[in-house]
Amino acid sequence: MVSEVKMVIAFRKDIDLGKGKIAAQVAHAAVSCALQAEKHDKKHFKEWTKSGQKKVVIRVNDIETIYVLKNRADQAGIINSLITDAGLTQIPPGTVTCLGMGPYESDKLDEITGEFPLL
Amino acid sequence: MVSEVKMVIAFRKDIDLGKGKIAAQVAHAAVSCALQAEKHDKKHFKEWTKSGQKKVVIRVNDIETIYVLKNRADQAGIINSLITDAGLTQIPPGTVTCLGMGPYESDKLDEITGEFPLL
Repeated sequence: MVSEVKMVIAFRKDIDLGKGKIAAQVAHAAVSCALQAEKHDKKHFKEWTKSGQKKVVIRVNDIETIYVLKNRADQAGIINSLITDAGLTQIPPGTVTCLGMGPYESDKLDEITGEFPLL
Repeated sequence: MVSEVKMVIAFRKDIDLGKGKIAAQVAHAAVSCALQAEKHDKKHFKEWTKSGQKKVVIRVNDIETIYVLKNRADQAGIINSLITDAGLTQIPPGTVTCLGMGPYESDKLDEITGEFPLL
């Protein structure tokens, strides 16, 4: 059986942003990953869009954890995108806010991100 | 001078969702609009990605307002995407949650959505 394909976005819980701003950052990660996958990982991209483009948003403690996850995704060959806020509003410019990973097989992503709770 | 290009996502404030779930719905709208624009409105898509893919998330009262905005966007020839939750978790299946519009010129989008506050 083919595993479900999903995208996971990890958001830092140690930065103070309103829910609209969080949503915009997560959307930035999702769009960046989707456009990369469309070019460089057509197989997962197609399965993901065909199956309703599932997304899961998790929360991590801090930027160190974001980099740990990025490293795991890179090692596994999973497309990922680190998002930095332009900082025009609520936080300093250049603040890393979240990391998008995938689309990729759900069980492989769970090996990388499964220990973290939903946002 | 060329107007800035942005995307606007309108989210219903009358449905009860956690911030991670809101973010996933908004991301769904953003990805759908981006992929449509990439195919059918290359000019705005290119300007938007080149300029940092700006996104603004606003809140509207109810589903009627979502449909009013969709109608305005359709009339103006602006790509838009209505998002329906799969309803597997917090709300009933098939609930319309948000509407993505654009990417398009900021001033034109403001004519359609400028009266609404940020989420």
